[in-house]
Amino acid sequence: MPSAYRFVTFLSDYGLEDEFVGVCRGVIKRFAPDVEIIDIAHGIPPQDVNAGATVLAQAVRYMPPAVHMAVVDPGVGTKRRAIVLASKAGPPLVGPDNGLLWLAAEALGGAMQAYSIENDALFLEDAGRTFHGRDIFAPVSARLALGMPLEEVGPVIPMDDVVRLDVPLARVHDDHIHARVVQADHFGNLQLNCVREDVESIGALFGDPVEVRLGARAYEVAYVQAFSEVPIGKLVLLEDSHRSLALAVNRGDARERLEARRGDPVIVARRHVGG
Amino acid sequence: MPSAYRFVTFLSDYGLEDEFVGVCRGVIKRFAPDVEIIDIAHGIPPQDVNAGATVLAQAVRYMPPAVHMAVVDPGVGTKRRAIVLASKAGPPLVGPDNGLLWLAAEALGGAMQAYSIENDALFLEDAGRTFHGRDIFAPVSARLALGMPLEEVGPVIPMDDVVRLDVPLARVHDDHIHARVVQADHFGNLQLNCVREDVESIGALFGDPVEVRLGARAYEVAYVQAFSEVPIGKLVLLEDSHRSLALAVNRGDARERLEARRGDPVIVARRHVGG
Amino acid sequence: MPSAYRFVTFLSDYGLEDEFVGVCRGVIKRFAPDVEIIDIAHGIPPQDVNAGATVLAQAVRYMPPAVHMAVVDPGVGTKRRAIVLASKAGPPLVGPDNGLLWLAAEALGGAMQAYSIENDALFLEDAGRTFHGRDIFAPVSARLALGMPLEEVGPVIPMDDVVRLDVPLARVHDDHIHARVVQADHFGNLQLNCVREDVESIGALFGDPVEVRLGARAYEVAYVQAFSEVPIGKLVLLEDSHRSLALAVNRGDARERLEARRGDPVIVARRHVGG
Repeated sequence: MPSAYRFVTFLSDYGLEDEFVGVCRGVIKRFAPDVEIIDIAHGIPPQDVNAGATVLAQAVRYMPPAVHMAVVDPGVGTKRRAIVLASKAGPPLVGPDNGLLWLAAEALGGAMQAYSIENDALFLEDAGRTFHGRDIFAPVSARLALGMPLEEVGPVIPMDDVVRLDVPLARVHDDHIHARVVQADHFGNLQLNCVREDVESIGALFGDPVEVRLGARAYEVAYVQAFSEVPIGKLVLLEDSHRSLALAVNRGDARERLEARRGDPVIVARRHVGG
Repeated sequence: MPSAYRFVTFLSDYGLEDEFVGVCRGVIKRFAPDVEIIDIAHGIPPQDVNAGATVLAQAVRYMPPAVHMAVVDPGVGTKRRAIVLASKAGPPLVGPDNGLLWLAAEALGGAMQAYSIENDALFLEDAGRTFHGRDIFAPVSARLALGMPLEEVGPVIPMDDVVRLDVPLARVHDDHIHARVVQADHFGNLQLNCVREDVESIGALFGDPVEVRLGARAYEVAYVQAFSEVPIGKLVLLEDSHRSLALAVNRGDARERLEARRGDPVIVARRHVGG
Repeated sequence: MPSAYRFVTFLSDYGLEDEFVGVCRGVIKRFAPDVEIIDIAHGIPPQDVNAGATVLAQAVRYMPPAVHMAVVDPGVGTKRRAIVLASKAGPPLVGPDNGLLWLAAEALGGAMQAYSIENDALFLEDAGRTFHGRDIFAPVSARLALGMPLEEVGPVIPMDDVVRLDVPLARVHDDHIHARVVQADHFGNLQLNCVREDVESIGALFGDPVEVRLGARAYEVAYVQAFSEVPIGKLVLLEDSHRSLALAVNRGDARERLEARRGDPVIVARRHVGG
């Protein structure tokens, strides 16, 4: 029995200067006037599939039951597939088959089934090769929200054919962790690809100082649970709101302070006190 | 018989940092709590009526039936009129009489009737001379969405008195086209004021190379239908999602690459192969 | 008798690049699917409580009856309280107890009662110390909109314990005013902390020239009610849409022209014509 959804969530790299997002909203509302759109974010760095996938995965578990539509699509107009993923938790995900949806599907219990969107009766007439958010993903998402069965979008494809992201994990070596900057947020906090357990495995607990190295530079930072445990302007290693570790500055901007960006390698080491 | 509309669309140059857009949303909701607002875009370059008019015209045909409210209004507080245009397709357009609404009215089949907004019983009390989005356009749009007849906003004005934009068209000269950059989008794609037929009239078809000149610089670019027809990083002349031609870079930013901006002249020429 | 509200308004410094705002929207919709969210603004400069308080106070009186949720929260994770303020006009305000809500409460007739949010049964499970918008303010605001009595959030606290902002007022000295820049808006207009009555008290009326000094620089500007009273590009002292005075440039950007920023002192003086 197909489910209908009251909400469509929408994430993209379209930005909000132009009409891209507004036009997609309009198309969804034309097909499904009663469906409500929840914008997750539209400021994903242009064509940065990894960043979009990370943000989407962090957001979906806070959403009400919904069709999740996401478009970060550098391959638009190529032979890359457009897909719908059915998640174990129920909500379907709609977008390009470039890895964007995979982490979010995992956050919803895992992808149960994948469909290739090929039924062009669902597309806007005159669908082009450059704006599939408007021409394909919006009208398909609207119909799914209205209760159209997933299989109407097109054929089931083998799960192994679905593109996944290669998400690098941090590696722990005795007394230090080789991590990377996953993303920088609006406040300049730098999320790393490691968690509390990694830091504990090198022998550091909340309250301990650790050493953080970016390239040739090294910083002594406090490993804490809240900004407020250090004075204003101090650098910290913090457990952030997604339970990832992040480099941050109390009331400041770590991205600027450290001149760091997504992908940069970071070493977090236990600090040996004394000689 | 007046129509009621479930939606008000909203385009402006107010940006989203301040409360301008939020306050207009609040005013619409105070007068018409059941009306839904679809934001088209609020990042039109400040006071750039041409850019606003272009974006609005490209967006309205994707919208559900709605009152279209638009505010890019460098002349606010002067004697410039505030107007409502009735479109042939039905939806009325509300905004300043500075050309902003004209292209959108044409996209909706043409303007059938124009009204000067003068009934100050419809305005917020204490309406000032600097924020007509809040004080005039929002309360008027809300009432029109509720079904108020257009003629209640004020007197009909002759259609010839409505301000139009002078939109320069590309000119074709034998083997080359004199075009201009209409706008740059979030991805740095540069939309030109020419279409497929113009390029065909100089003898180039999809797949052919063309020469593009900006000032003293000349580029050989591929004339294609999708980014993916060229390698990553290559410049293309592309038919965009509005059926205009655009200069773009596959997975890159043409605005940056070409150091170009709105209004810049561009020559597109057939490329003579061989001597 | 508790009131239910159809709307939750939402102001923050979260920006729109990341998922912060979208996740808060999702949480509100999970608890209260029928409640509508009106975004006031999310571009408050990061952690700038004064700017957030000013924008919120200017916006709330244009909103329909609503729960007003605001988050600019540099002290998140410290012992700073989370509070609900009951306003005389009715609508409750929800946010950190750092002064952010105070001016808005005054704009709604004054704060009648204050509650400390301490009932953690209302929080998201696993609430952390870095993202109270998601974990505390969103679920609390959603419940208040559904009609939950204010006292369920936690104990009443003495009104004198509520943090207020120290909002500096302009001082008038004979023939000149010592003012400050309160904020710059999207167009670069510089709002000052003075009003028409201050300028009248130094003997200047609309239409008069005044002298404006920033640091060592002095400008002769027209004191007017609308941009259009001066030529394009001219600097004016203007009564803005909030009845504050603002420095502005007709179709230009005063922030850029004057290289001024929030907090800068500005002297406005009567201009002595002749010797």
